[in-house]
Amino acid sequence: MQDIIFLIKCPDQKGLLANISSFFYNNGFNILQCRQYTDTINNEYFMRIQLDAAGLQTSRRELEKKFGEFGKGYALEWSIHYSDYRPKVAVMVSKASHCLYDLLERYTEKELHCEISLVLSNHPTLEYIADQFRVPFFCLPVNADIKGEQERKIISLLDKHHIDLVIMARYMQILSPEFINRYPQRIINIHHAFLPAFEGGDPYRRAYERGVKMIGATAHYATADLDRGPIIAQDVEPITHEHTPNNLKQIGKDIERLVLSRAVRYHLEHRIIVANNRTVIFK
Amino acid sequence: MQDIIFLIKCPDQKGLLANISSFFYNNGFNILQCRQYTDTINNEYFMRIQLDAAGLQTSRRELEKKFGEFGKGYALEWSIHYSDYRPKVAVMVSKASHCLYDLLERYTEKELHCEISLVLSNHPTLEYIADQFRVPFFCLPVNADIKGEQERKIISLLDKHHIDLVIMARYMQILSPEFINRYPQRIINIHHAFLPAFEGGDPYRRAYERGVKMIGATAHYATADLDRGPIIAQDVEPITHEHTPNNLKQIGKDIERLVLSRAVRYHLEHRIIVANNRTVIFK
Amino acid sequence: MQDIIFLIKCPDQKGLLANISSFFYNNGFNILQCRQYTDTINNEYFMRIQLDAAGLQTSRRELEKKFGEFGKGYALEWSIHYSDYRPKVAVMVSKASHCLYDLLERYTEKELHCEISLVLSNHPTLEYIADQFRVPFFCLPVNADIKGEQERKIISLLDKHHIDLVIMARYMQILSPEFINRYPQRIINIHHAFLPAFEGGDPYRRAYERGVKMIGATAHYATADLDRGPIIAQDVEPITHEHTPNNLKQIGKDIERLVLSRAVRYHLEHRIIVANNRTVIFK
Amino acid sequence: MQDIIFLIKCPDQKGLLANISSFFYNNGFNILQCRQYTDTINNEYFMRIQLDAAGLQTSRRELEKKFGEFGKGYALEWSIHYSDYRPKVAVMVSKASHCLYDLLERYTEKELHCEISLVLSNHPTLEYIADQFRVPFFCLPVNADIKGEQERKIISLLDKHHIDLVIMARYMQILSPEFINRYPQRIINIHHAFLPAFEGGDPYRRAYERGVKMIGATAHYATADLDRGPIIAQDVEPITHEHTPNNLKQIGKDIERLVLSRAVRYHLEHRIIVANNRTVIFK
Repeated sequence: MQDIIFLIKCPDQKGLLANISSFFYNNGFNILQCRQYTDTINNEYFMRIQLDAAGLQTSRRELEKKFGEFGKGYALEWSIHYSDYRPKVAVMVSKASHCLYDLLERYTEKELHCEISLVLSNHPTLEYIADQFRVPFFCLPVNADIKGEQERKIISLLDKHHIDLVIMARYMQILSPEFINRYPQRIINIHHAFLPAFEGGDPYRRAYERGVKMIGATAHYATADLDRGPIIAQDVEPITHEHTPNNLKQIGKDIERLVLSRAVRYHLEHRIIVANNRTVIFK
Repeated sequence: MQDIIFLIKCPDQKGLLANISSFFYNNGFNILQCRQYTDTINNEYFMRIQLDAAGLQTSRRELEKKFGEFGKGYALEWSIHYSDYRPKVAVMVSKASHCLYDLLERYTEKELHCEISLVLSNHPTLEYIADQFRVPFFCLPVNADIKGEQERKIISLLDKHHIDLVIMARYMQILSPEFINRYPQRIINIHHAFLPAFEGGDPYRRAYERGVKMIGATAHYATADLDRGPIIAQDVEPITHEHTPNNLKQIGKDIERLVLSRAVRYHLEHRIIVANNRTVIFK
Repeated sequence: MQDIIFLIKCPDQKGLLANISSFFYNNGFNILQCRQYTDTINNEYFMRIQLDAAGLQTSRRELEKKFGEFGKGYALEWSIHYSDYRPKVAVMVSKASHCLYDLLERYTEKELHCEISLVLSNHPTLEYIADQFRVPFFCLPVNADIKGEQERKIISLLDKHHIDLVIMARYMQILSPEFINRYPQRIINIHHAFLPAFEGGDPYRRAYERGVKMIGATAHYATADLDRGPIIAQDVEPITHEHTPNNLKQIGKDIERLVLSRAVRYHLEHRIIVANNRTVIFK
Repeated sequence: MQDIIFLIKCPDQKGLLANISSFFYNNGFNILQCRQYTDTINNEYFMRIQLDAAGLQTSRRELEKKFGEFGKGYALEWSIHYSDYRPKVAVMVSKASHCLYDLLERYTEKELHCEISLVLSNHPTLEYIADQFRVPFFCLPVNADIKGEQERKIISLLDKHHIDLVIMARYMQILSPEFINRYPQRIINIHHAFLPAFEGGDPYRRAYERGVKMIGATAHYATADLDRGPIIAQDVEPITHEHTPNNLKQIGKDIERLVLSRAVRYHLEHRIIVANNRTVIFK
């Protein structure tokens, strides 16, 4: 069965639920799921509504036009997603293999509703994994001199493959603000710390030195403000004084894998709306 | 601000969300929160809708009558709850103090929207705690001969105090099916194991003997089928081979406290609907 | 650096720590780590002692002989493990790929100190994964008529490859007691439930029907008593009423993966001693 | 049964375990438990050894002298603790009641091996709780003018009652470095955030604004460097976009309670050694 998903954001106002749900009912749709959230601090309203596509009695374009007209009355910002489209994904990596393996494995097992179109890296190290899973691999080494040039090449690859989502699966280069801003809420990064603790480099060593009793990982949309984009998912594991920075790296791998794949799934299932640098997630 | 909460259950059918939300909108209400769930296996629909009571333009009785009429068309089963009423609660205990302390403390700190009217026990042991918090304490010792008689006394106390909810906070007697059936979905019990593991007596010793690596606790509505009522909340803690049955009892206390108070809060906030011996909980 | 690990079990008695540690000190060893546990209920003593192999001043055989002599005085049961030996492992699977992928990935990333020598299955389904990781795959279909015959073939493969550990990574056949008893504490099974809850078949469906609020997985040594062997590792995840049995299966995959690999790692690092159907695990 | 506990720290060197355990064995002691940890990064050795006091064949003073002599050879830093002494504790609070309630309840239930001698506060708000549990309450209001004076009064109260441990159970004043330094590793503070995230004031509001998906609490020894002392215990709970700062405060209360009491228990059971601003905890 195919679904149609609307993500909606607007100023809070009376009658939103009754009027929006009636719109779809009156247009012949069966509502499979509807989740709402009212941010009472900022007076904003959020909705995710999932319709049985079998109810569609017009063209998609007509539905969009009709809902667009309807939405004007409520100042709705909205997006529409058809479940028969599989978003195209690029995975960016450096040398650490665990997140790449995990994503490709879940992809192979059909846990992720997408098409992984290519793997990009600044090192050739992980090419064999992309090969193993028969996904094209592009190696674009980076140094200070050619960084801008390489970013342009990456952009051209992403454009050519009509990439909808970029996953930074432990890509250890900092991308330029220009690059980042080109893909708003379309780049998911995994940071190997429980943000906002240990922003920046070498978080496991710093966690060891601070003597924390849990370590974590954070998946977030990348913004030009490094490690400060809207957080999508976080998790932690208890540790003890016995763990060296190397042990933490090892333990952290399992957290990173789980947190990143969870965030990617929320995104691909159209469960996330961003507002005020925070994510509203309809699980 | 006062709220009105409806809990609704009915056969799944098209238009429920649009029609129910329109009913409230058309009757002048602002919908503060609305949560739905469709059980696609049993084709049942569940809703919790929370209204701003300021929108009430009629008497409560009239609202109820009107919604009752409306609901017939959809075969709705429903209940209504006004937040200005504080449900009356009886706590039943034996000798273990931790759950009683926890409930009374949360009650004092206004975490629980209720009035704890009395504490009942088959032992005098915990009277000092009820005293400390200035709640009436009734001691009704039980043995095989007088069990029926004592249950009748308990019923008469519950009736007299118009008790809405009975919390079995480690009450170590088995109540008769007649007693239990008198209070459907109005008795919450805490079992000191991760049900369905270790139903019945002495679960910590049995957990030790089985060598499990986590222990847990389960809060559920009591039914005549011992330890098999609808589960409301569960949690676990990791343990190791080093923990003796006594250690488990100690560790378990914190789990029991948290799980029981969580379940009680869901109930008092009217977040639970029971169907097919399972709980639908709108958190 | 190479290590030598002793696992020791004996009746509790005074002077064990002083005398055993002095034995190694007097024989020129640096003790890298030493963990003890006294089971005060059964009066048993357990120790794991890890030595710097650089201290070895004799042949391995002589060390073993000398320690054997020493141990008689205390009725020690013990085993010795040299870290330069990589245990040989066979993985048994049926059709579910997630545990096999996870083990092979960790193996490739050198997280597991072993050699995965072969993958055995009663179905050809997962051959492509073994191929991907270049591990030999043997398909031995099973039905009631040829079960005994196939088990004999499996045994002959395990013998031929000098297999030290069998991992049942969602192998959906029940092995005969004769087979199981041939490999005491050398078969690790993953059961997709939080044992002792939901022993036997179809645990996710039964978890759904019982309405539990958490599901789990359990890794244990296989014994002839199905799903009742010594538990090595367990974990759980919270679920809600919204999860269908299929969702539980999906959520469970991540728990199974983590729990199984954790148990395998404890075994391969010689951290487990079994007594009274319980595991002592020196983490 | 009475125990004697030694906490030991020294430069790592060969023979420590054999020689220290032999010392106690040769002096007639049964070793109930012995835990060691070698910090291979800083080359430091840590030990907690728990003896059956029944083995004591001399006066306590003589034991201490003898061990002192022995320890010189290994440059041991050590402390000795007799389980028949119950450390004296002062609890400092402001207006939040949950941690105070929890500590007094656990104290009453004999979970904490100590004597809570007094409760100190800068507000009269919680006097009724101290009264309820019959513990003396002292109110010492603070403002900029009299801060030094009040600290002197607090010190004189702590001295007079021979206080061994100060628990800052949500005491909302910053103590002077002079005060803090007077009680090294003898003041435990609970910070309502997952340190090092959200050091300083108003962490729940800042956690809300940052949009984190988990909140936490941290118990640590207070040092002159605010919120940067050695961490003893931490824990977290998942949250969602739906939680307001007020909800976080509510959820946080349960984490704070558990984390603080866990840290206090480790301290009172003499399980903690501090080195390099990190805690070694022998659980």
